[in-house]
Amino acid sequence: METIKIGIIGAGRIGRVHAENIAKFVPEMEIKTVADPYMSAETAAFLQRLRIPNIVSDADAILGDPEIRAVVVCSPTDLHAEYAIRSAQAGKDVFVEKPVDYRIERVKEVIDTAKKAGVKLQVGFNRRFDHNHRAVYEAVRAGKIGNVNLVKISSRDPEPPSIDYVKVSGGIFYDMMVHDFDMARFLAGSEVTEVFAYGAVLVDPAIGQAGDVDTAVVALKFENGAMGVIDNSRRAVYGYDQRVEVFGDRGAVMDVNDTPNNATLYGADGTVSGACYKIMWDRYTGAFAAEQKAFAAAVINGTETPVTGEDGLYPILIAAAAAKSLKEGRPVKISEIQ
Amino acid sequence: METIKIGIIGAGRIGRVHAENIAKFVPEMEIKTVADPYMSAETAAFLQRLRIPNIVSDADAILGDPEIRAVVVCSPTDLHAEYAIRSAQAGKDVFVEKPVDYRIERVKEVIDTAKKAGVKLQVGFNRRFDHNHRAVYEAVRAGKIGNVNLVKISSRDPEPPSIDYVKVSGGIFYDMMVHDFDMARFLAGSEVTEVFAYGAVLVDPAIGQAGDVDTAVVALKFENGAMGVIDNSRRAVYGYDQRVEVFGDRGAVMDVNDTPNNATLYGADGTVSGACYKIMWDRYTGAFAAEQKAFAAAVINGTETPVTGEDGLYPILIAAAAAKSLKEGRPVKISEIQ
Amino acid sequence: METIKIGIIGAGRIGRVHAENIAKFVPEMEIKTVADPYMSAETAAFLQRLRIPNIVSDADAILGDPEIRAVVVCSPTDLHAEYAIRSAQAGKDVFVEKPVDYRIERVKEVIDTAKKAGVKLQVGFNRRFDHNHRAVYEAVRAGKIGNVNLVKISSRDPEPPSIDYVKVSGGIFYDMMVHDFDMARFLAGSEVTEVFAYGAVLVDPAIGQAGDVDTAVVALKFENGAMGVIDNSRRAVYGYDQRVEVFGDRGAVMDVNDTPNNATLYGADGTVSGACYKIMWDRYTGAFAAEQKAFAAAVINGTETPVTGEDGLYPILIAAAAAKSLKEGRPVKISEIQ
Amino acid sequence: METIKIGIIGAGRIGRVHAENIAKFVPEMEIKTVADPYMSAETAAFLQRLRIPNIVSDADAILGDPEIRAVVVCSPTDLHAEYAIRSAQAGKDVFVEKPVDYRIERVKEVIDTAKKAGVKLQVGFNRRFDHNHRAVYEAVRAGKIGNVNLVKISSRDPEPPSIDYVKVSGGIFYDMMVHDFDMARFLAGSEVTEVFAYGAVLVDPAIGQAGDVDTAVVALKFENGAMGVIDNSRRAVYGYDQRVEVFGDRGAVMDVNDTPNNATLYGADGTVSGACYKIMWDRYTGAFAAEQKAFAAAVINGTETPVTGEDGLYPILIAAAAAKSLKEGRPVKISEIQ
Repeated sequence: METIKIGIIGAGRIGRVHAENIAKFVPEMEIKTVADPYMSAETAAFLQRLRIPNIVSDADAILGDPEIRAVVVCSPTDLHAEYAIRSAQAGKDVFVEKPVDYRIERVKEVIDTAKKAGVKLQVGFNRRFDHNHRAVYEAVRAGKIGNVNLVKISSRDPEPPSIDYVKVSGGIFYDMMVHDFDMARFLAGSEVTEVFAYGAVLVDPAIGQAGDVDTAVVALKFENGAMGVIDNSRRAVYGYDQRVEVFGDRGAVMDVNDTPNNATLYGADGTVSGACYKIMWDRYTGAFAAEQKAFAAAVINGTETPVTGEDGLYPILIAAAAAKSLKEGRPVKISEIQ
Repeated sequence: METIKIGIIGAGRIGRVHAENIAKFVPEMEIKTVADPYMSAETAAFLQRLRIPNIVSDADAILGDPEIRAVVVCSPTDLHAEYAIRSAQAGKDVFVEKPVDYRIERVKEVIDTAKKAGVKLQVGFNRRFDHNHRAVYEAVRAGKIGNVNLVKISSRDPEPPSIDYVKVSGGIFYDMMVHDFDMARFLAGSEVTEVFAYGAVLVDPAIGQAGDVDTAVVALKFENGAMGVIDNSRRAVYGYDQRVEVFGDRGAVMDVNDTPNNATLYGADGTVSGACYKIMWDRYTGAFAAEQKAFAAAVINGTETPVTGEDGLYPILIAAAAAKSLKEGRPVKISEIQ
Repeated sequence: METIKIGIIGAGRIGRVHAENIAKFVPEMEIKTVADPYMSAETAAFLQRLRIPNIVSDADAILGDPEIRAVVVCSPTDLHAEYAIRSAQAGKDVFVEKPVDYRIERVKEVIDTAKKAGVKLQVGFNRRFDHNHRAVYEAVRAGKIGNVNLVKISSRDPEPPSIDYVKVSGGIFYDMMVHDFDMARFLAGSEVTEVFAYGAVLVDPAIGQAGDVDTAVVALKFENGAMGVIDNSRRAVYGYDQRVEVFGDRGAVMDVNDTPNNATLYGADGTVSGACYKIMWDRYTGAFAAEQKAFAAAVINGTETPVTGEDGLYPILIAAAAAKSLKEGRPVKISEIQ
Repeated sequence: METIKIGIIGAGRIGRVHAENIAKFVPEMEIKTVADPYMSAETAAFLQRLRIPNIVSDADAILGDPEIRAVVVCSPTDLHAEYAIRSAQAGKDVFVEKPVDYRIERVKEVIDTAKKAGVKLQVGFNRRFDHNHRAVYEAVRAGKIGNVNLVKISSRDPEPPSIDYVKVSGGIFYDMMVHDFDMARFLAGSEVTEVFAYGAVLVDPAIGQAGDVDTAVVALKFENGAMGVIDNSRRAVYGYDQRVEVFGDRGAVMDVNDTPNNATLYGADGTVSGACYKIMWDRYTGAFAAEQKAFAAAVINGTETPVTGEDGLYPILIAAAAAKSLKEGRPVKISEIQ
């Protein structure tokens, strides 16, 4: 088994998750260095237990290390593009967390830089690697449902993020539904050409005061003639609820929400089954590991990454169109955005 | 048990279904007369086996019979309003099949006539009485999910209707999604104020040539701030597929598609479970009986019918708005229609 | 459609159920007469609403009526055999409720009499006609699971019968598990050759004082080498619970417990789905109608009934063996019983 | 976090699984040494990738190492007891794979030795840690179903083991159903007092020629009055099938078979859902990790292990009784075995 040395920039929550998953499940990648200017003692200890040899504050220790072949960018969002570009310029393959950036030009710059540098670029749309969604995707790609006519996605979080986050995240279409825009393209196998968005403040008035909505329904048109619907809520009291469905001229394929176990209790008061996941990291444990496994394979085998830079760009375009649609109360073409 | 005598106008498919259900399951209604100008010998024999004493060609035998207290109007659609109006004018309580009429003014005329005559008016939105949809509805009304934030409805037919029917039916929003517009209002407990529609011809080009679409996605806004999504397809190769879901601030309630049995086969080639219903009358057998049972209760007890004339009107308004939205490529307010 | 005239002997609970089902769902059978010496005014009124012309006290009005071609015997259990025999001797096809009799010789006498008289004999094992169990059966018979290796049946009632009933019913193996013994043979397509029974009093000590057990587990051996397990409880607080499973060398097929609806509520306190049936007549509504439909077909077409006299006998033999096994603490061969 | 150094004796399939799980998921245990006299170069490389420092042939390198506090015994079955005893005598806490030994006296010797030495002893009944079975167990222990009346377990393997294995394994009750005997005690919270076994050769005649059965049904009596049923088959063509159910006086709790994903395909040919697991290590991935996590907790916190030496002994006693029951055709008390 060929192995490569990698570096991770950023040791916040997602950086630690990737570090742990790579250390445990991706033996073909060896984490040589993790860099974070705000590395806590606790985080450093955690990384040491994973036997990562270099735990540093300065990303240059990664970018300037000729032994390091690939970089996993887990910095704060506003530095994603910068580190991705610098990694590419240093000739390193790049895995960058989503969103690459909220500014479309900046995302294109990352893509262009990676292309010019001839390096791999993978964007962290981890849900493509979820075991259930993946099985739906594979059935669609295998032609089991024929041509795609409809894509339906429900995506609801257990709790809204902090208002501080809402203020800077770009809003529900950019920080939450962006996952579903990616999933919609992924499942449909076709580009979104137009969107129409409804949104409302039904969860917390403070979200509205911050200029965002917390509940949204978006209708989509795809290039191949198919249509889609996505619904999002910032708060489902019962926990994570994420389901996808694709309907075609030869059938339909769908998953149900994932749960920690499938035990069912039959009692005098009714039939009760296991609660949904309440913590995102538990819900997508396997998906985070699988996306790094796939990144390693692309890097080592020299194949295209399964979530390209364009895959990082398009959901941002759709998010922009959805935001514009909500604001202007009319359907918006993606071509209006670019 | 108080029993009343009723008449049925129209002995086509739906008239025979109502006749049979009333004869079997609604002992409080006694069918005295069925009238149809095109009564076949086979239909007459069928009705005789149900022990219906008067099988006639002329509706006047019903409208002019003082013993008959209520009329079930199952005529061709373009005569629904006329017979409903004449029944009301004759002082009889009226059950009229959906759609009351495609013309909004005509529907209002039926409602007004019934009000002036002081008779009951019930419209045949049978799906409200489906055992699964009803359980969803009851959970919502019982406050189990708190305030309604989202309503999601999927509704797909096994086979498209004939092109001849498509040409006169008013189109998918009037003849098919009208059921879902009713269900959306019913589940949300609030009026639709605006709709946005996407539609496409993905099933059969002949449907497009007839001026209709065969696949549609509609987003809804409700007066109470909630939103909705409905998807329709004229052809699901796997059979009837009808599911509803309501999401609120305290939970979600949903049903799954109904199937004739729940046996599951585990074989070397995979896990296979029972096929979906292929025939609408089998899918909604219980619902058709239950709506007549409810009509009888309203007539006998003097209570409001569970599907009023207004309940017959609003889905037509929404259908008109959806058709307009599809045509004009913009969201359309219901207030633009009236 | 050929129709035949029938009589029903006994208008207790099961007699009324059969009368209603035949009147509503089996147009090929016309109920001419219902006889019951203890006919209440309420029952008579109920039967009149079904438009049954002759409501009498004396069964001879049926047995001596040359127009009546078939008899449905719904008398008290201890008169099942007598009326079945007298009906057969009168040349009438016979449907007799289960158990035919608790005495094996008496059951054989019924079978012999019917054979000599050349009349049809069907025994009321209605569960064979349940939509879910039937689908399992059909998959097995269609060879979907290959050779049968195992049959598993769970059968639990919501509430125990009265102690008075327990004292005369013959016990749990005769009045409750007898259904499962029939189902086991039906699904396995092979005769039971040996049984081993465990039983305990876990529901109500009074049942033990009456000489019975209220919870039982029985292991079965079939002639074809397969094995089976059945469990019974007199009280499942959550309602009726009846599931069957057949495992073979090419797969397995099983059903899940039937429920009145499939709506599911996701709330902060967990995921709750519809309660089970609490009333047997609701659980098996369709099965009761289907068995009469099948009886009519056998009578009219001159084909074998789907539940023959032998099908009535064998479960009694197995029940006797199970009771003996429980008493003697050893496996008992069916051949020891006959 | 306190960490301890451990050694693993045996680097066959299960030894490698434990090594990998401990390395990845149990940071509180540090594997210092793995010993196997038949260590292949490939296995050594695998262990090196897990960063295990000492990879040796002689178990004495573990038993004689004062730094090593606990030993995980993964040797061939016939050496389980020897290494467990030697580890205990060396003052080390012991995790020993199941079965401890097929000879009851030998198992007792292991238990006694561990007690005298004052060391922990945990037996590798990993299924107790399966997420679904565990949820069932926890519902039972939390009193959700009241008193336990019945325990039902189905356990089927995708493929029979080699005939060579069958010849030395002690047979289906010792090498396969022993897991279910453990599960039955675990779920019932009570000891088995008597068993009755039926068995047959329905999968492969060669298994019969080797003196074993390949399909078995066992009925159980528990000390607390409850009963149980277990069915096993050496070959389910559809893959692993493992389900448990506990029925009590206040309800029932059960799980369904675990599957790799929950996607469902609705097509013209039927409704198809994901295949079952085909590989045991995939089916119980999480359970193997969780049992080591639990062992580490017991060792570090000085608490009782969750699967004690007695828990290792009782299933062997039940297996012996089941084998005797099958041979002698009668129920066998556990007290006859000891």
